[in-house]
Amino acid sequence: MDDIITLDYGSGGKKTARLIQETILPRLDNPALRVLGDGAIVPLEGPLCFSTDSFVVSPLFFPGGDIGKLAVCGTVNDVAMCGGEPKYLSCSFIIEEGLPLETLERVLDSMHRTCESAGVRIVTGDTKVVERGRGDQLYINTAGIGTLRYPGLSPAAIRPGDAVLLSGTMGDHGTAVMLARSAMAESNIISDCAPLNRLVERMMVIGAAVRVLRDPTRGGVATTLNEFIEGTGFGIELEEDALPVTPAVRAACDMLGLDPLYCANEGKLLCVVAPEDAARVLEAMHSTEEGKNAVQIGTVSSRFPGKLTLQTPLGGRRILQKLAGAQLPRIC
Amino acid sequence: MDDIITLDYGSGGKKTARLIQETILPRLDNPALRVLGDGAIVPLEGPLCFSTDSFVVSPLFFPGGDIGKLAVCGTVNDVAMCGGEPKYLSCSFIIEEGLPLETLERVLDSMHRTCESAGVRIVTGDTKVVERGRGDQLYINTAGIGTLRYPGLSPAAIRPGDAVLLSGTMGDHGTAVMLARSAMAESNIISDCAPLNRLVERMMVIGAAVRVLRDPTRGGVATTLNEFIEGTGFGIELEEDALPVTPAVRAACDMLGLDPLYCANEGKLLCVVAPEDAARVLEAMHSTEEGKNAVQIGTVSSRFPGKLTLQTPLGGRRILQKLAGAQLPRIC
Repeated sequence: MDDIITLDYGSGGKKTARLIQETILPRLDNPALRVLGDGAIVPLEGPLCFSTDSFVVSPLFFPGGDIGKLAVCGTVNDVAMCGGEPKYLSCSFIIEEGLPLETLERVLDSMHRTCESAGVRIVTGDTKVVERGRGDQLYINTAGIGTLRYPGLSPAAIRPGDAVLLSGTMGDHGTAVMLARSAMAESNIISDCAPLNRLVERMMVIGAAVRVLRDPTRGGVATTLNEFIEGTGFGIELEEDALPVTPAVRAACDMLGLDPLYCANEGKLLCVVAPEDAARVLEAMHSTEEGKNAVQIGTVSSRFPGKLTLQTPLGGRRILQKLAGAQLPRIC
Repeated sequence: MDDIITLDYGSGGKKTARLIQETILPRLDNPALRVLGDGAIVPLEGPLCFSTDSFVVSPLFFPGGDIGKLAVCGTVNDVAMCGGEPKYLSCSFIIEEGLPLETLERVLDSMHRTCESAGVRIVTGDTKVVERGRGDQLYINTAGIGTLRYPGLSPAAIRPGDAVLLSGTMGDHGTAVMLARSAMAESNIISDCAPLNRLVERMMVIGAAVRVLRDPTRGGVATTLNEFIEGTGFGIELEEDALPVTPAVRAACDMLGLDPLYCANEGKLLCVVAPEDAARVLEAMHSTEEGKNAVQIGTVSSRFPGKLTLQTPLGGRRILQKLAGAQLPRIC
């Protein structure tokens, strides 16, 4: 193999075959990949959850993760948020000519480790190579499928009085990537990038009246909560004091002019649950690594219909809208 | 809406929501897209065929198609080649900052028309925006799922004596894109880009002993046939006289220094079938628009194990290897 990936690795001919056979497949090895065709045949019962995301994060490697880990977690989490049990992923690479082969290998190894930890398999894929200046090293798309285990999760199920839970601190991913980009060496912020399917399983299996789950990625917690209440007759009231943010993330946000409420997370989820079940669900969350810092951050109410509001410690209240503008490009 | 897509359309915030709500969803409209979450819930029975491709074709529009039509056909065809009935697609856009909104709209309209004609639905998606110079206008990924209808299609089922069928002329897509790129105005070559799922259905429903199906995209017919026989005890013998190529494609290939046997096709399939069933399968193919020019192009034999050979009209025979080098970058 060459040291770098050249255009002929995307030709569909001999070099593409070598890249797949010698570099990609050994690293993603699993039984479904041992018979190659135009796609994979997988045993799954319907109904299914089906989701996709493309990942264009810059830089490719950052504290706590890399584009490969992100590409697996992002799609695993989307399937899990729909109430599905993520099982099989597709994986497609758009490689910029000149990418060091070693970079691709590191990303593949990371994808494999993340798949193992999430209990999912990459079963089909594709590789394209574009000319220098037509990409940015590596873009990855994953799509994921899994059997629907918990039907009915939807913002439409939310009711006034419901509790709003967050599985941990806000903004760790977004600030970790931003700091990695600006090469600030002293940062100790680590991306929260993690598969959440086991956390979801733990929360759902207890039979609580969970209304909706969603991972607040691009746009952050404030944007996702706005999506829940848009056009409805109720609002969500957050307590500023209850919002979990590490001191390091808070300091980084102050410095970068960001608001943790709008920063991307890649290993956190928001859960709206009936008030009588909130304590049980929090307890289930606390029993997992991914949810050990889960807290209730707010309540659904009908006082400010369609609005997400933040109660400050001094008694003020402000409206939080969806993210406007491009606070954080290329964060995932 | 703005006239061009700027970075904030990829923020995950207000502009992303507007792009999705006002531009993308109305054009791809179908019931599954009317309830948006992190993914789609679809009714499908297993086992499933699951496939993905990323599309990076340049230029975005070419005679006979565009990147949107290609993105739907490519994945529909991959699922169909596995013996699946393609049903649901995911669709993910990587947009370069500055793309005219009107370009995206044209592509979306084309995707919608192609989905209608193939009988599939886009049910989930994603949109990312990258800075100028980090992409090339638009890259699209699709993944597709469908119930497995015809199990057992595999090169491992091929036997000496089997007939090798091709559903129509070779090289139309590859040459159409190459000519569009070099802006040669006088070309009358039109990409063969088409969904093949109905052709496959027609071929399979008659109960013939079809061994394997595959669409010869990147790398062309010669590369795909090499993949069938690699490491086996048999070879495939092609008859040069039987290879269908239009005069226009032949002339373009001569001019561009290409070989139609290695040119990409996006609406053709190769079929290996038991000799006694070849005529029936050809008849079924001829009853469809996509297969009306189907012919037998060769035979599986044990004379030259592992080799694809071409018998010339003058009695010579040459070995056709897999595509080496990057004959045609960014063709799909």
